[in-house]
Amino acid sequence: MSDITFRMATEADLPTIIAMLADDEIAENRENAAVPEHYREAFAAMAKEVFNKMLLAEQGGKIVGSMQLVFIPGVSRNGTRRALIESVRVRSSARGQNIGTLLMKEAIRLAKENGCGLVQLDSDLRRPRAHLFYRRLGFVQSHAGFKKDLT
Amino acid sequence: MSDITFRMATEADLPTIIAMLADDEIAENRENAAVPEHYREAFAAMAKEVFNKMLLAEQGGKIVGSMQLVFIPGVSRNGTRRALIESVRVRSSARGQNIGTLLMKEAIRLAKENGCGLVQLDSDLRRPRAHLFYRRLGFVQSHAGFKKDLT
Repeated sequence: MSDITFRMATEADLPTIIAMLADDEIAENRENAAVPEHYREAFAAMAKEVFNKMLLAEQGGKIVGSMQLVFIPGVSRNGTRRALIESVRVRSSARGQNIGTLLMKEAIRLAKENGCGLVQLDSDLRRPRAHLFYRRLGFVQSHAGFKKDLT
Repeated sequence: MSDITFRMATEADLPTIIAMLADDEIAENRENAAVPEHYREAFAAMAKEVFNKMLLAEQGGKIVGSMQLVFIPGVSRNGTRRALIESVRVRSSARGQNIGTLLMKEAIRLAKENGCGLVQLDSDLRRPRAHLFYRRLGFVQSHAGFKKDLT
């Protein structure tokens, strides 16, 4: 597994990231690669935040994993900074190599390095294998995740 | 209910906010008002983000509700900006007046006004009444919420 490296995405990575976001049976209908300007605008908006980035895993120069990693300061829990993880993906052709685990461990390392006291994420109730994966990484399924569509 | 008004918190509101955060049977042991500098540092860090604020509800000049409201740009879901809600509180002496509902509706209004396509929040599994409250506001309990303590 020593051939996996990590870096933050640049705008040039967006086509690959969009393809990976859509390479998922639950999320595939949420993405529309035919309108790349929506993604470019969102990526530019992320860059204006203190830390809101797409973390990429690469293997042999090819992107094999991605996630959104956001550090969110807040007053609650004695002023705890949270790391929020969204949209974790491993390229379907690269699964079974533990890349997801390495990507999560890199995110946790970065969160600690940046003073976060908590990492949090939501996982769709239709993903029981993902829930097992997060529990193995030391996450506690302590909360119910609610969403409200505004569109 | 027309006597409820809303505003964003300033640093001068922190003592009241800390007291409200701790006025909760699940969260009370997470707060430590004896170390106010942790809260001040966190509040200053929030101010450096594009939109990461404490939204307050007031009644007769007194703070009766608070929440953290964060707008988070991201590439997934076709470049959807998310609104994240954390740490919703209504002052215990002011409960039963629908203040929580008004506070949530104000947050949803602000989220729409700022181009968010989704509002999301986690609620502790030990808060079944809160879950009912969020469902009544149109939230769908579609996700499992995972947290990992880094301290």
